[in-house]
Amino acid sequence: MEYYSNQISKLIEELSRLPGIGAKTAQRLAFYLISQPVESVNQLATAITEARTKVRYCKSCCTLTDEELCPICASQNRNHKLIMVVENSRDLAAYEKTGKYDGVYHVLHGAISPMLGIGPADIRLKELMQRLQGDVEELIIATNSSLEGETTAMYISKLVKPSGIKVSRIASGVPVGGDIEYIDEVTLLRALEGRVEL
Amino acid sequence: MEYYSNQISKLIEELSRLPGIGAKTAQRLAFYLISQPVESVNQLATAITEARTKVRYCKSCCTLTDEELCPICASQNRNHKLIMVVENSRDLAAYEKTGKYDGVYHVLHGAISPMLGIGPADIRLKELMQRLQGDVEELIIATNSSLEGETTAMYISKLVKPSGIKVSRIASGVPVGGDIEYIDEVTLLRALEGRVEL
Repeated sequence: MEYYSNQISKLIEELSRLPGIGAKTAQRLAFYLISQPVESVNQLATAITEARTKVRYCKSCCTLTDEELCPICASQNRNHKLIMVVENSRDLAAYEKTGKYDGVYHVLHGAISPMLGIGPADIRLKELMQRLQGDVEELIIATNSSLEGETTAMYISKLVKPSGIKVSRIASGVPVGGDIEYIDEVTLLRALEGRVEL
Repeated sequence: MEYYSNQISKLIEELSRLPGIGAKTAQRLAFYLISQPVESVNQLATAITEARTKVRYCKSCCTLTDEELCPICASQNRNHKLIMVVENSRDLAAYEKTGKYDGVYHVLHGAISPMLGIGPADIRLKELMQRLQGDVEELIIATNSSLEGETTAMYISKLVKPSGIKVSRIASGVPVGGDIEYIDEVTLLRALEGRVEL
């Protein structure tokens, strides 16, 4: 892209490496950044480097945090005997937004996927098993409803059940507001199998 | 967003200030950045600050560049007697991508808009008039085909015509590949008025 100056081309190139940012969006973002006050641009750059260097894994639940223990694991108001297993920190945030879950989490940072060569040793399972040595009443598996998520859920449940800890899986079915007409067959079958008495 | 750590929340907040980046995209980008190697994250941060601090306006055409003169204005292979007036550097890049224009440019950095309070003194018109003191044969006005772009084109043409320099406007009409059925009436009328003999 020789019609732009070096610095602009470099910025566009760097921005277009981000996921979901194509060449056109990168170009728009680059020109936007150049037009902004120096301080606010520096703020963004600092936020990027600081987040990358200072963020680490919570000692207990493995979510991303800046402290040794994340705010949820450190909280006295949460039920530490109830652990929800999620695939990543975004899934944790999604459940936190509901505001109704008072247990703690365990973030796997992935799911078992033989296709991608991701085995049980590549996700944070060892850390989970260690936590289960403590006082835990129930383990809720909230991995995605995908092939990988289901495989992971099955694997964990087989691993944990012998210890006597209650293992549950979040319900699968028609989403709220979902139109049955447009929902795939597998989900419809799941919803049928998982029907509850009224 | 207390379910994320401070650093992550700060990064998400900074990213979501960018145009076209909503809360969900900012979140995805933030987690992507945290998962990347430190060097590549630092590269992005450096590209952002360097572009902002080093980029300046070309002394001649006012486009954004890191040198005193942009590569186009500095080139011996371009026809410096032919100037195309564009609203911004992205429009310049769009014409450069065609690879068929061998003249130079003049970047206005805006268009006259009484509604937004942008007058002729707020865009790079003074610099254009100064350039026209030199040896210029034709001025091609390639501002957008919007109300502001048309106003600006009209204003420049009235300003320049007395000097005897040829002033032209890029054609307006049906875009190549465009389906007449779906094109607005104003464009269709323009295409009719601007019809050329075959």
